[in-house]
Amino acid sequence: MNKIITISRQFGSGGRAIGKAVADKLGIPCYDREIIGQVAQSSGLSEEYIEATGEYSMHRTWLGRALSTTHAAGALNNEDLIWVEQRKIILSLAEKGPCVIVGRCADYILKDRSDVLTVFIHADDKSRAERIVKLYGERADKPEKRLKDKDKRRSAYYKYYTETEWGVAANYNIALDSGALGIDKCVEIIACAYGVK
Amino acid sequence: MNKIITISRQFGSGGRAIGKAVADKLGIPCYDREIIGQVAQSSGLSEEYIEATGEYSMHRTWLGRALSTTHAAGALNNEDLIWVEQRKIILSLAEKGPCVIVGRCADYILKDRSDVLTVFIHADDKSRAERIVKLYGERADKPEKRLKDKDKRRSAYYKYYTETEWGVAANYNIALDSGALGIDKCVEIIACAYGVK
Repeated sequence: MNKIITISRQFGSGGRAIGKAVADKLGIPCYDREIIGQVAQSSGLSEEYIEATGEYSMHRTWLGRALSTTHAAGALNNEDLIWVEQRKIILSLAEKGPCVIVGRCADYILKDRSDVLTVFIHADDKSRAERIVKLYGERADKPEKRLKDKDKRRSAYYKYYTETEWGVAANYNIALDSGALGIDKCVEIIACAYGVK
Repeated sequence: MNKIITISRQFGSGGRAIGKAVADKLGIPCYDREIIGQVAQSSGLSEEYIEATGEYSMHRTWLGRALSTTHAAGALNNEDLIWVEQRKIILSLAEKGPCVIVGRCADYILKDRSDVLTVFIHADDKSRAERIVKLYGERADKPEKRLKDKDKRRSAYYKYYTETEWGVAANYNIALDSGALGIDKCVEIIACAYGVK
């Protein structure tokens, strides 16, 4: 049994930092951007392109996606190809040993395993806006707009590929508000829960 | 500052037991059924009636409620009266000192306080079905139907009075799956988080 933690997260909630810190605390690897490199290698697509589309729907609605000219009947478009490759890589990482996997619908992809602790990290808009400005700097769009846009596209991506709602408490073993609890407490709680499942 | 924990929970998830155990561990009171007695006293309605309607919409949909013959324009029906009394009591309990409050939309009622740790407890259907049969015995309806019915009515009640979705992870500081984690681990995690907020 390879105990695995998957971390889904709202943009700017610190989910990536929490995943890394939990992995360090437990002495297991954390896979996040590493997955992008592997998908690039197996798909032949660029890392930049995969990063931009590997978790984010290019279209905010199912209808928008269905009407997309890149989506010919029966053919895999680039988004679908990335999904297939990401899925394969995540399934094989889970076979290798205990680990933390951040984002990329890993909770859904590994849903048939009984040894996965699924986590969702979220925070209030104010904390997240401050965090993204600190991490990625100011942009033309206001931070609140950037948050809303990224979350909408993550949510649409998740729903399209998993047919499950993103961010519904009952779909995760643990959901934590990093804005109220702080990053360190979230790390402590997840590491503490890892002992059980 | 009176640090308060509110516990919202799916039916059969053990949320009430977890609330009680957290309160014991922290040495603070837990209010659950006590609230029913107080509402009975101030409203003149029976405890049985309050228990049956104080968290559960009698109508599964807003439309059903709007069409209810008991809901005359401008007048408080019994459901509304219970809401008003419950709200007053919860606000005054929160003023008295640190405590745990189970159910009854306390998270929403206390949303303007900054010292409230909001918790949501859920579990898979199998664990919950086993739990309700153990606690309340067999009934004519199958446990899975009882779960679905109670959750639908709690969710409708919550939405009607708070205009907020029930069970959305981002609306709680902590959401825990008591089926996967076990009651004891949930108690430990909540007590651990109480130290921060």
